[in-house]
Amino acid sequence: MNKSRVEAFSDGVLAILITIMVLEMKVPGGGARLADLRPVLPVFLSYVLSFLYLGIYWNNHHHLFQAVRRPSGGMLWANLHLLFWLSLVPFTTAWMGEHGFAPVPTALYGLVLLLAGVAYKLLVRALLRAEGPDSVLARALGRDLKGSASVVLYVAAVPGALWHPWLGCALYVLVALLWLVPDRRIERALAEASSR
Amino acid sequence: MNKSRVEAFSDGVLAILITIMVLEMKVPGGGARLADLRPVLPVFLSYVLSFLYLGIYWNNHHHLFQAVRRPSGGMLWANLHLLFWLSLVPFTTAWMGEHGFAPVPTALYGLVLLLAGVAYKLLVRALLRAEGPDSVLARALGRDLKGSASVVLYVAAVPGALWHPWLGCALYVLVALLWLVPDRRIERALAEASSR
Amino acid sequence: MNKSRVEAFSDGVLAILITIMVLEMKVPGGGARLADLRPVLPVFLSYVLSFLYLGIYWNNHHHLFQAVRRPSGGMLWANLHLLFWLSLVPFTTAWMGEHGFAPVPTALYGLVLLLAGVAYKLLVRALLRAEGPDSVLARALGRDLKGSASVVLYVAAVPGALWHPWLGCALYVLVALLWLVPDRRIERALAEASSR
Amino acid sequence: MNKSRVEAFSDGVLAILITIMVLEMKVPGGGARLADLRPVLPVFLSYVLSFLYLGIYWNNHHHLFQAVRRPSGGMLWANLHLLFWLSLVPFTTAWMGEHGFAPVPTALYGLVLLLAGVAYKLLVRALLRAEGPDSVLARALGRDLKGSASVVLYVAAVPGALWHPWLGCALYVLVALLWLVPDRRIERALAEASSR
Repeated sequence: MNKSRVEAFSDGVLAILITIMVLEMKVPGGGARLADLRPVLPVFLSYVLSFLYLGIYWNNHHHLFQAVRRPSGGMLWANLHLLFWLSLVPFTTAWMGEHGFAPVPTALYGLVLLLAGVAYKLLVRALLRAEGPDSVLARALGRDLKGSASVVLYVAAVPGALWHPWLGCALYVLVALLWLVPDRRIERALAEASSR
Repeated sequence: MNKSRVEAFSDGVLAILITIMVLEMKVPGGGARLADLRPVLPVFLSYVLSFLYLGIYWNNHHHLFQAVRRPSGGMLWANLHLLFWLSLVPFTTAWMGEHGFAPVPTALYGLVLLLAGVAYKLLVRALLRAEGPDSVLARALGRDLKGSASVVLYVAAVPGALWHPWLGCALYVLVALLWLVPDRRIERALAEASSR
Repeated sequence: MNKSRVEAFSDGVLAILITIMVLEMKVPGGGARLADLRPVLPVFLSYVLSFLYLGIYWNNHHHLFQAVRRPSGGMLWANLHLLFWLSLVPFTTAWMGEHGFAPVPTALYGLVLLLAGVAYKLLVRALLRAEGPDSVLARALGRDLKGSASVVLYVAAVPGALWHPWLGCALYVLVALLWLVPDRRIERALAEASSR
Repeated sequence: MNKSRVEAFSDGVLAILITIMVLEMKVPGGGARLADLRPVLPVFLSYVLSFLYLGIYWNNHHHLFQAVRRPSGGMLWANLHLLFWLSLVPFTTAWMGEHGFAPVPTALYGLVLLLAGVAYKLLVRALLRAEGPDSVLARALGRDLKGSASVVLYVAAVPGALWHPWLGCALYVLVALLWLVPDRRIERALAEASSR
C-alpha cells in the first residue's frame, strides 16, 4: 500500500471539485451592468459555502492521512466512498444556487453533506481499525466529537431545510464554523452535551 | 524512466475523468421539486456505475505500478492507450444516462469498457515483458483470471445490451462486483471453468 | 504539517483554473471562416491576461513555499483564502471577455485581482509570522514592494475601469509586466516612490 | 528552483487538457441510434489526433525534464509559454471537429501546433543554456532533428490546410507518427536531408 498515491489522487479529485463549481456561475441574459449580477448572487453564496466545505474536507483529509502509519486496502475503498459523495457537491450546489435556496434543493444539499459526513466517519473507522487503539491517530482523534456533532446537525438540517430553507442553511454554516473556529470551548460544550 | 511521473499523470487524468462526469448531471426544465429529479435518475445511476469503474481502474493501476521495478518506454504508450479508452467513459456515460439505458448507447458504453479492458491487458503484458516471468509482478498477477473474465463478459454484454439493455447493464455490474468483492471462490471457480 | 501536500493541492487548483478558462472560448454562430473568429478576439485577449496572471501566481507561490521551513496550520487557511479569490478569475475573465471589456465587468475583474492580491499579502504575513524575522523567507521577500505596489495599482484600476475600461486594462497589464520583467530599476524606483 | 513542482504543475495542466477535450463530444439532436453518432465522428477523429499530440508532448516533457540537472528561473516561463499554446488545443480541436475539417479551422489547428512546436524548441534552448553543451541533456537531444522537422512540416501544413484541409491533416498525422514510431531510419533520412 502506498499512502502518497492515495493522497495525490484525493488531492486531484478535491482540487477539481472545488474548482469546477465556478463553471456553474454564469451571468444570465448577457448583460454587462452591476444589476445583471443580482441573479448570480445566490449561486455565488452557495459556491462560497461549498468552497468552504470542500476546503474543510481537504484540510481534515490532510490531517487524517498524516497520522496514518499502516495503509490498508480497506482504506482505498473507504476513501473512494467519501470522494463519491463529495463529487455530488457541485451538482447540489448548482441546483440550490439556481433556485435561490428553495426547500427541496437545500434539503438535498444537506443530504449529500450528511452522506459525506457518514462516509468520513467510516473512513476514520477504517483507518483506526488498521492503526489500532494506541496509535497516534487514535490519540489525535479522541472521540471525534466534531465529526459526530456534524452528522447530528445534518440530520436536523435536512428536514429543517424542507420546513424553512434558511434554517437548513444556518445549520450548514454552523457546522462549517464548528470546523473553522479553533475554539476548545465548543468542543468542551459538545462533550458535556453528549455525556449527559 | 521515472515511474512516479507516470503515476502522477495517470492520477491526474483519472481524477479528472471521475469528476467531470458530474458536470453532465443537470436538472432539466429548471424545476426545484423532488419530482424534477426523476429525469436525472438514469444519469445518476450511470454516473454511479462509471464512478465505480474508474475507481476500480485507479485501484488496479495503483496496485499494478507498485509492483513495477523496471519502468520501460513501452509502458508509457501502453498506459496512454488505456487512458485514451477510459477518457471516453464520460461521453458514453452521458449518452447512456440521457437516454435512460437505450440499447445502442448501452452497447457503446460496454464497447468502450471492452476496449479499456483490452488496453489494460496490453499494459499488463507490456509491464510483464519488462519485469520478467520471475518478478514480483508476475507472481502477484498469476494468470490474471479477473482481467480475462472481464473481457469475456464485456464481449457477451455488448450484443446483450443491443438485445436487451438491462442484460448488458447486469453484466457490467457483475464485472464491477467481480473486482470489488475480495472473494477467492469466484477466482477459483473461474480458474476451474477456464481449465476445462 | 506537510508542506508538499499543500503545494500539490495548490498546483492542482491552479492547473485547473488556468486550463478551464479555455472552455469559455467558443465560436458563436457556428461559422468556419476567419471572420467568425472576430467575436472570439476579446475572449482570447482576456484569456491571455488571466493565463499570465495565474502563471505569475503559480510562479510566486512556487518561490514562496520553497523558502518555507516551518509549515503552520494558519498557512493552510491563508492558502485556501488565496485560492478562493483566484478561483473566481475564470468567471470574471469570461464576463469581461464576452462583453468586450465593458466598464462593470472590467472593474469586477480588477476587484477580484485586488482581493487575490490582498489574500497573497495575508498569506505572506502568515508565513512570515511562523518563519520569524531572520528567516530565509523574510530576507528573500524584503519589504515586498511588488506585492504592495500591485495592491495600490489595483485600487487605482478598479474605479479607473469604470471611468474608462482601457485604463483599467492598461493598469492590469502594467502589474503583470511588473512581475514578469526582472528589472531591478522598477523595484528601486518604487522603493524611492514609497519612501518619499 | 524545484524541478518536481514544475513537473507536477505541467502534469496537471496536460492531464486536464487531454481530458476536457472529451467534454466537446456531444451527441446533437438527442438521438439514441447508431446513425446519431455520425456527426460526432469528425469530433472524435479530431479528439484522437489531439489526444495523440498531447500524449506525445507529455512524453517528451517527461524525457526532457529527466535530463535536467540545473533548474533555472527562465525554465519556468519557457514552460508556461509552451503550456499556453497547448492550452489552446481543446479550442482548435473543437472548432475543427465541429466543422468537419473545414479549411480555416484546420489551418488554425496547425498554427497552434506550430506555435507550440516553436515554444517547445525555446524551452529546449532555455534548458540547454542552463545545462551547458556537455550536459546529459545536450548529448541526449543531439541536433533535435525531430523538433526542427516538426516545425518545418507545420509551416507547410498551415497553408496546405487552407488549400486542401486533408493535406494539412495528413501532415499533422505524419508529424505525430514521426514522434511515435521509434524508427532510426526516419531520423537518419532527415539528417541527410538537412545536411544537403
